[in-house]
Amino acid sequence: MNQTLAASLLDRIGRAFRDVTQTARSWRGAPYREDLPEQDSERLIEQIDLCLEGKGGEVSVRARAAALGRAYLELNEEGRKRFLTVLVERYGLDRELVAERVEAWRRAEDAEAEAKAVAGLRDALDPPAVRLLAQFTGLPQGVKFLVDLRADLIRRAAEDARFGRLADELRRVLAGWFDVSFLNLERITWSSPAILLEKLVEYEAVHEIRSWKDLKNRLDSDRRCFAFFHPRMPEEPLIFVEVALVDGMAGSVQVLLDESRPAEDPHEADTAIFYSISNCQAGLAGVSFGNFLIKRVADELQRELPNLKHFATLSPVPGFRAWFEKQVAAGAADLLTREEKEALSSLIPGEVTAQSFAQALARKDWTEVPALRDGLQAVLTRLCARYLVREKAGRRALDPVARFHLANGARVERINPLGDTSRKGMKQAFGMMVNYRYKLDEVEANHEAYSEGRVIASPAVAKLARA
Amino acid sequence: MNQTLAASLLDRIGRAFRDVTQTARSWRGAPYREDLPEQDSERLIEQIDLCLEGKGGEVSVRARAAALGRAYLELNEEGRKRFLTVLVERYGLDRELVAERVEAWRRAEDAEAEAKAVAGLRDALDPPAVRLLAQFTGLPQGVKFLVDLRADLIRRAAEDARFGRLADELRRVLAGWFDVSFLNLERITWSSPAILLEKLVEYEAVHEIRSWKDLKNRLDSDRRCFAFFHPRMPEEPLIFVEVALVDGMAGSVQVLLDESRPAEDPHEADTAIFYSISNCQAGLAGVSFGNFLIKRVADELQRELPNLKHFATLSPVPGFRAWFEKQVAAGAADLLTREEKEALSSLIPGEVTAQSFAQALARKDWTEVPALRDGLQAVLTRLCARYLVREKAGRRALDPVARFHLANGARVERINPLGDTSRKGMKQAFGMMVNYRYKLDEVEANHEAYSEGRVIASPAVAKLARA
Amino acid sequence: MNQTLAASLLDRIGRAFRDVTQTARSWRGAPYREDLPEQDSERLIEQIDLCLEGKGGEVSVRARAAALGRAYLELNEEGRKRFLTVLVERYGLDRELVAERVEAWRRAEDAEAEAKAVAGLRDALDPPAVRLLAQFTGLPQGVKFLVDLRADLIRRAAEDARFGRLADELRRVLAGWFDVSFLNLERITWSSPAILLEKLVEYEAVHEIRSWKDLKNRLDSDRRCFAFFHPRMPEEPLIFVEVALVDGMAGSVQVLLDESRPAEDPHEADTAIFYSISNCQAGLAGVSFGNFLIKRVADELQRELPNLKHFATLSPVPGFRAWFEKQVAAGAADLLTREEKEALSSLIPGEVTAQSFAQALARKDWTEVPALRDGLQAVLTRLCARYLVREKAGRRALDPVARFHLANGARVERINPLGDTSRKGMKQAFGMMVNYRYKLDEVEANHEAYSEGRVIASPAVAKLARA
Amino acid sequence: MNQTLAASLLDRIGRAFRDVTQTARSWRGAPYREDLPEQDSERLIEQIDLCLEGKGGEVSVRARAAALGRAYLELNEEGRKRFLTVLVERYGLDRELVAERVEAWRRAEDAEAEAKAVAGLRDALDPPAVRLLAQFTGLPQGVKFLVDLRADLIRRAAEDARFGRLADELRRVLAGWFDVSFLNLERITWSSPAILLEKLVEYEAVHEIRSWKDLKNRLDSDRRCFAFFHPRMPEEPLIFVEVALVDGMAGSVQVLLDESRPAEDPHEADTAIFYSISNCQAGLAGVSFGNFLIKRVADELQRELPNLKHFATLSPVPGFRAWFEKQVAAGAADLLTREEKEALSSLIPGEVTAQSFAQALARKDWTEVPALRDGLQAVLTRLCARYLVREKAGRRALDPVARFHLANGARVERINPLGDTSRKGMKQAFGMMVNYRYKLDEVEANHEAYSEGRVIASPAVAKLARA
Repeated sequence: MNQTLAASLLDRIGRAFRDVTQTARSWRGAPYREDLPEQDSERLIEQIDLCLEGKGGEVSVRARAAALGRAYLELNEEGRKRFLTVLVERYGLDRELVAERVEAWRRAEDAEAEAKAVAGLRDALDPPAVRLLAQFTGLPQGVKFLVDLRADLIRRAAEDARFGRLADELRRVLAGWFDVSFLNLERITWSSPAILLEKLVEYEAVHEIRSWKDLKNRLDSDRRCFAFFHPRMPEEPLIFVEVALVDGMAGSVQVLLDESRPAEDPHEADTAIFYSISNCQAGLAGVSFGNFLIKRVADELQRELPNLKHFATLSPVPGFRAWFEKQVAAGAADLLTREEKEALSSLIPGEVTAQSFAQALARKDWTEVPALRDGLQAVLTRLCARYLVREKAGRRALDPVARFHLANGARVERINPLGDTSRKGMKQAFGMMVNYRYKLDEVEANHEAYSEGRVIASPAVAKLARA
Repeated sequence: MNQTLAASLLDRIGRAFRDVTQTARSWRGAPYREDLPEQDSERLIEQIDLCLEGKGGEVSVRARAAALGRAYLELNEEGRKRFLTVLVERYGLDRELVAERVEAWRRAEDAEAEAKAVAGLRDALDPPAVRLLAQFTGLPQGVKFLVDLRADLIRRAAEDARFGRLADELRRVLAGWFDVSFLNLERITWSSPAILLEKLVEYEAVHEIRSWKDLKNRLDSDRRCFAFFHPRMPEEPLIFVEVALVDGMAGSVQVLLDESRPAEDPHEADTAIFYSISNCQAGLAGVSFGNFLIKRVADELQRELPNLKHFATLSPVPGFRAWFEKQVAAGAADLLTREEKEALSSLIPGEVTAQSFAQALARKDWTEVPALRDGLQAVLTRLCARYLVREKAGRRALDPVARFHLANGARVERINPLGDTSRKGMKQAFGMMVNYRYKLDEVEANHEAYSEGRVIASPAVAKLARA
Repeated sequence: MNQTLAASLLDRIGRAFRDVTQTARSWRGAPYREDLPEQDSERLIEQIDLCLEGKGGEVSVRARAAALGRAYLELNEEGRKRFLTVLVERYGLDRELVAERVEAWRRAEDAEAEAKAVAGLRDALDPPAVRLLAQFTGLPQGVKFLVDLRADLIRRAAEDARFGRLADELRRVLAGWFDVSFLNLERITWSSPAILLEKLVEYEAVHEIRSWKDLKNRLDSDRRCFAFFHPRMPEEPLIFVEVALVDGMAGSVQVLLDESRPAEDPHEADTAIFYSISNCQAGLAGVSFGNFLIKRVADELQRELPNLKHFATLSPVPGFRAWFEKQVAAGAADLLTREEKEALSSLIPGEVTAQSFAQALARKDWTEVPALRDGLQAVLTRLCARYLVREKAGRRALDPVARFHLANGARVERINPLGDTSRKGMKQAFGMMVNYRYKLDEVEANHEAYSEGRVIASPAVAKLARA
Repeated sequence: MNQTLAASLLDRIGRAFRDVTQTARSWRGAPYREDLPEQDSERLIEQIDLCLEGKGGEVSVRARAAALGRAYLELNEEGRKRFLTVLVERYGLDRELVAERVEAWRRAEDAEAEAKAVAGLRDALDPPAVRLLAQFTGLPQGVKFLVDLRADLIRRAAEDARFGRLADELRRVLAGWFDVSFLNLERITWSSPAILLEKLVEYEAVHEIRSWKDLKNRLDSDRRCFAFFHPRMPEEPLIFVEVALVDGMAGSVQVLLDESRPAEDPHEADTAIFYSISNCQAGLAGVSFGNFLIKRVADELQRELPNLKHFATLSPVPGFRAWFEKQVAAGAADLLTREEKEALSSLIPGEVTAQSFAQALARKDWTEVPALRDGLQAVLTRLCARYLVREKAGRRALDPVARFHLANGARVERINPLGDTSRKGMKQAFGMMVNYRYKLDEVEANHEAYSEGRVIASPAVAKLARA
C-alpha cells in the first residue's frame, strides 16, 4: 500500500475509529513501535492468537481484529514487512491438520458424514492468515484496507515468494467480494465529487489527463465516463472507461482529446468509441470484472441513446514496435513484400530491406515528408494487421490489449496509422492504433473462435493480414 | 421459497429481465413446461453443462445462468422439486476428482507446487451445483433469489436430506456475502417507505403487529427501530430490533405497546429496552449477524442520546412452561420448597404438590384473584430464575432466547411476572418475561463465562435461582 | 389551523426551536397565558412593535418574529382569536400614510422621483400585519405555519369579516411563494414514506381511501399518483391526482377501485384516466397551481409511457341532482321530451311528468329493475349532458368540477350512467359521472371558447345536449 | 448577463426546452433575428401583449412567456438592448390607471370596498414589464435567467436610467423569492460536485483561488466553506464564506492560505475565522441574505464543534489607503502625533510630516528594513484603528467591509499590520487587515449602537483609535 493512501486511510479512520474500538484499543496496551521489533512481534502474536481462537465472542473478535489492522497501518515500511512475515511464517496452512481431515473424509461412511468431512477439510485448507485478514473488514474502510494490503503483498512478492502466495490466497477472498453482481456501474460527470474526479486523474493509465481542463473536456456532453464501484468503497473507482460519442469510426486519439473542439450533439452520434480503459486498484489484479464493463456500458448507452448503432474501441497496440524490432533483429526475410519493396525504393536510400525500412522509421521526422510518410504507413498498417491477427503465443494474441478485447468477443475492425502521435504512441507502435468492434450479436461466437485460437477481423483487416 | 415472494420476484424482474437477457432467452428455446417433465429436464441439463463449462465467455455464462434462474422461477412446486433434484443428483461433489487432487497435494514437492495443489483441491471441494447457483446473482434481485432458494431447500430437507446438504453448502456462500461488514444498519421510522414498513408487519415474530396504527405507535418519538440491510436487497430487512426508550427497567410488554400512552421525551430516558428482535430471511438461517445487531444499535443510540445509561431487553421465556410441565409430569419432588408449600396451603385446595400447583395454574382465572395470583407468581418467579440460570443442555442454556443473549454477553437481570399477558405469553411462560442486560464493559467476560457453562445473573436473580 | 396539526407542529419544532431561538425566548419573559388575557395582549403588542420597528438588526427581528409565532402556537382557541384580533385591529393599513404617499406620487416631478414615490406608496399599501406574518417563515416549518394560519383566518371569516380580509392579503403573499415554478411535481408510490401516504388518506376528497390496502391498490403498477410539493413543506402534498392506466375510456369508478382486480401492463394501456384530484391545504384556497397539474402530469406520463394516446378524467357531477331537483320543483315543462315521455309511459305508473319521473328516481331500487333502469338512465344521461354543456351562471358552467376542467381547456367527452354507485355518487348525481378529455393540441382553443361562454363537447355529447 | 452564462443556459435548456415548449415554439413562427430589427420588434410586442392579456389560459401563458424568454436568450447584445428598451418604453406603469385606482380608493365607502380598492391600486402599481418577467420562471433555469437579466439591467443602467429603474422593480420581486427562509445553507467540501467547486473559483472575490490545489487546501479538514443556495438554482451558490478553524485569533491571510501547512485537528481549535465572504450573483445586488450567513454558519459550526469559543473575521480594509492618501493630500495636520513624529525622526529622511511619512510608505521596500517597518507599522495601525472606528459618512462607517460587519453586530477586535502582503493587500491598505469579532450575546446591542452611529471596538482598538 503506498504511503499516501495509508496516511489518508489513517486520517479518515481517525475519530470514527477512536469511538468504535475504544475497547479494542484497551487490549493493545502501548502501541507497537513503528518498526515492530522482536519484543513487539511477540505481543502481536499473542493478539493474533486470541483473535483466531475467537475469545470473547464474535463482536469482540472483530474489534480485536480491527485493532490489529490499525496497528498495521501505524507501522513503517520495515514494521509492516515484519508484520507480514509473521503472518506467512506462523499462520500458513497446517499440513498435519489437512492430512487428518483428508483421512476423516476417506473414512466417512455415509453422505452425512462425508458432507461434514468435506466441510472440515475445506476449513483446514483456509490458512489462518487469510481468516485473520478477512476480519479486518471490521475497520472503517476495511475493504479498501485489504485491497491495498494485497497490493502491498504483490509488490513484495519479488523479495519473498511467500508474500506472493498470500496475495494469491487473498485474491480468492476478494474475488468473492468483488463479484460483478455486487458492483455498481455509475456514470461519472463534471457534477461528480471532486474527490472522485481527482482519482480519475490519478488512475488514468492510457492517455494521461493533463489538467482539470482536460478532464472537464473528457466529461463534456458528447462524452461518457463509467466506472464500477463497490458498495464499501464508494469513492474508489475499480475500473473506468472513457467513451466518445461520434459519427463514424474514430481514428485519432488526438482529435478526440482536442480541448478546443466544440461538443457535438450526442443524439446525432451513431458510434460509441471506448478510447480509454483503466484499472484502478493494484490489489484487485486477477479479479475479473473488466469483461463485464464494456457490455454493461454498451447497454447503458443504448438505453440512453437509441441512435447509437456501433460500439468500438480506439485502442493502442502497445506491443507492436517491440515485435517489429524483434523481427528486424532476427533478420526476418518475409517482413516486406516484393511490391512494398518496389514502392519504397524511391523513398528510402539504398536497398530496401527490413533493416533500411527500420532505419527510416527510426528517424524522428519520418512523418513530416508526405510521400515518405504515406509509403511507410502503408507497410506499417499491413504489418500491424498481421501482428494483431496472426501473431500468437499459443492460442492467445501476442498483444496484451488485443488479448483483452478478443477474449471479450470483439473483432479487429480497422487499423489507424498515426492514430496516436504522442511520444508514447510513437514509441510503442509508430503511432498505430486499432479499433476493436463489439457487434453484440457476434460477441459470443467471436469469443468461442478466439478461445480456439482464431482471431476474428473485419474483411478489410483480414485481407491485409493475409497479404 | 413461498409462492407470493416468488410471484413478486417474477413480477419485478419483469421488464428489466426482458431487456437484459434477450440473448439469454434465445438459448432457452421454448420455455420449460411448468412441471419440468423428463424431456425438459434433459434440455435443462444441457444448459447447465454449457454454463459450467464456461462456453462463450464470462458475460455469456452469466446471462445463461440468469436464464436458468428465470426458468426455475417459472416452474411450479413439482417442477422446482425436479430442478433441485437434478442439481443434487448430477452436480454434487466429484469424489474421484477430490481423491486425485489430494494425491497431487501429497506429491507436491515445493511451496509453489503445494500452493497450486491446495488451490486445485479447494476447487474440487466446491460442488458444481454451488458454483452454478452462485452465478444466479446475475438475475435482477439475484441475491434475494438465492436466499429464497435456500429457504426452499431447508423446507424440503425433511423430504430429501440431499436438499438439506445443498442448503448447508449454500450457507457457506451466503455467509461470505452477508458478512456483517457488508451490511448497513439503518434506522426505520414512520418516514420510511411503506413497502419496507409492510415487511416489518410481515416479519415481526415476537409480538404481532396488529395494524398500521400499532406499527406507527412502535415508531413513535420515544421508540427506535433498526435493521440490517444488504446493499443488494435494499428493501428487505435481514433482522430488525424494536427499542423503547424509557425511564427505569420495563417489565410489561403490554404497557410498552399500549397505543393510547403518550410518547415520552427520549432525551430524558435512561434505559433502552430491546423488546422485539425478529429474523426476516428463512434462507439466512445459520448466518450470524444477529450478534452484532445489539452492540451496533446500542452504539448508535448512545451517540444520539448520551442520556441513555442502561441497555436491556424485555424478552419472552418461550421454553419455560414446557420445561415446567415436563418437571411436573416427571414428578419432580423438589419443585416447590417447604416454605412455598406452606404459603400456598391456604390458597390451593387439597395438598400442595407440584401437581396441585400445576392444576391451579391451569385455571384461566388464576390471575384474577389477587392473593392467589401473588402466591403463584412468587413461586413461578423463582422457578423461572432457576430455569434460566441453572437448567442447561450441556453447557448451553435450555431456553432458546436465553441462549442468544447469554452467548452475546448479556446477563439475566430481572424476572417479570405477568410481563406478557397475551394468550401467547400465558401459553408459553405463564406470562413471565425477563430482562437481559447488556453492560458494555462486562459483555466480553460474560460471554467467556457462558462459553464455559456459567450463566451470569444479577445478584437478585442469582439468589432466587439458588433458592 | 386544526389542533392536531398545531400539536404536531409544536412537537416537531420542539428541540430545534429550543436551540435556535434561545435568544428569542429570552425576550418573551414568561410565556403568555393560554387565553391571552388583556395584560398579556399588551406585552404581545410591545413585542410586535419591536419587531416591526426592526430593532436589533434583521437577524434579531427574525428570531423575535419566530418567538411570536411560537407564542401563537401555544395559545388555545380563545387566545388565538385574541391574537388575530390584535393583528386586524392594530396592524391594518395606515390610511393617512397611504394618502400622504399618494400625494407624494402626484408631486413627483421626474421619473426618478416617481419611481421612489411608487415604491413608497407600495410599501404603505402593505399592512404591518402582513409584514409581520411574512416573517414567521423564520420558524421551523414556518411556511406550513403560515398556510395553516391562513386556513384558520378563512375559517373565522364568518365571525369577523376582518379575518377574511387578512386572509385575502395573505393569499397575495402565499401566491408569490407558491408560484408553480417553485413547486416540485413528484410521483408517489408504495415506496414513498408512510408519513406521506398517511396524508393521502387524510386529504383524499373525492373517493375516500378506506384502508391501507385500498391505498396500496391505488399505487399499483397500473396506477400513478402525482403531487405538487413546496421545497419548504417536503412532507406536505399541496394537491394530488390519482391516475389509472387503462385501455379505452373508463366509465365506472367502482371498477377502477376494485381491489381484487389484477394489475394490467401499463405499457399496453392507451389511456390515462385522472379519477381523483384533491386539494390538500385549506390555507392555499385561491392560489392557483391546480391548472398546471394535469398538463405536467400528462407530460410526465407521456415521457414514461409513449403508448399513452388519450388523457381524460373520470369525474363526478356534484351539482347535477340539486340542479335537477330545482328544475322539477320549479315545474320546468321542458324537462322531458315527448319521445322520452312515451318511452317511459310503460315504466312509470300514472302520467309521465317531471314530477313522476323524479319520484321514480327517488326510489332506492330504481337501478335494480333492468328495463326501468335503462329507461331512466337514458333520460338522465341526456339531462346531464344538457346540465354540463348548456346550463351556465353567466359565462361559467354551473357545475363546479366542470368549471375547473373546462377552464383548463378540456372538453366534455362522455357521460357515464351509474359510473359511481356509491352512496355519495347516487346522492349527488344519480350515479352519473363524466369524462373530461384533454386533447393537448386543442386545450388552448377550448379554453378560449370557454372564456367566451362556449362549452366544447364531443360530437356525441353535443348532440345529446341539443336534444 | 454575460455571454458565457447565457450560452451555458441556452445549452442546458436545450433538449428539455424543445420538449416542453413545443407548443410555445409554434406560436413564435420564425425565430427573431439576432439584433431584433424594427419588424421583429413588432412581432415581439404582439406576443408580449398576448401574454399580458392572459390569452389561452394560465398554462399557455407560461409557455408563451417561456418562448419569449428563449427568444431573449437567442438575441445578441444589440438585440437584447432593443428587447429591454421595448419593455421599459411600452410596459411601464400606467399613470392614468393608477390615478383612477387612487380615486376608487378614496371613494370606497366600507371596509370591504376599501380592501378591493387597495388590491386594485396595488395591481396598478405593478408594471406590466415586471409581471411579464416574473413569468419567465417557467423556463428551465428560469430563476437564474431572471437573476442574470437583472444583472444585465444593472450593467446597462448607466446608458439608460430606465434600465436601472426596471432593475429596482425586479429587486422587489427577487427579494421575495430569495427571502432567507427559502434558502438552504450547505457545506461545500472536496466531495462536492466539480461543477460547483469550479464556481467558487469563479466567484471568489476577496483572495483569488489560484488553482485546484489552492481550492483543495481551502476545503481541508481544518477549514469549512458554506454557501446559501436557492432550491431552483441548486448548482449556483448565492454567497459563500470560507472559514479557518484555528487556535487563537488569526492575523495573516498568507499563513492561512499556505498550501504547505499541515491541517490541524478541528476538534482542538477554539476560534473560527471567517476569512473570505463573496457574493456570487450580480443580479441579486441589494437583496439581503448576507446578514444571516455569519449567524447561521456560526450556529452550524458550534453544533459540529462545541470546542469553538470565538467567531471572528480576518477582513481586508479596502478603503484605508485611499482615505489615508486623501488625508495627506488635504494636508491634514493631525495625522501624526508628536510622539510618532519623534519616533520616526531617525527612520525617515528629512522632516517627519504626513507627506514624508506617505513618501516612505510609497517605497516598495519599506517592509524590508525591520526598524523602518516597525516604525511605520505602529503609526499605520493607529491610523487604521481611527479610520475604522471614528471615520464616518453620516452614521455609517467609511469602510465598506466595516459597514457590513458593524451593521451585523460585530465589533472591531484587532488590527493586523502586514496581515495581507499580497499586491492587492498592499495597494488597498498597506497590508493592514482587521478582525471583526462576533460575540453572540452582544450582537444585538452592537447593532443598535452602530445604527445610532457608535462603532463598538475592543478596549485595545478603542484606545488606539482615541490616541
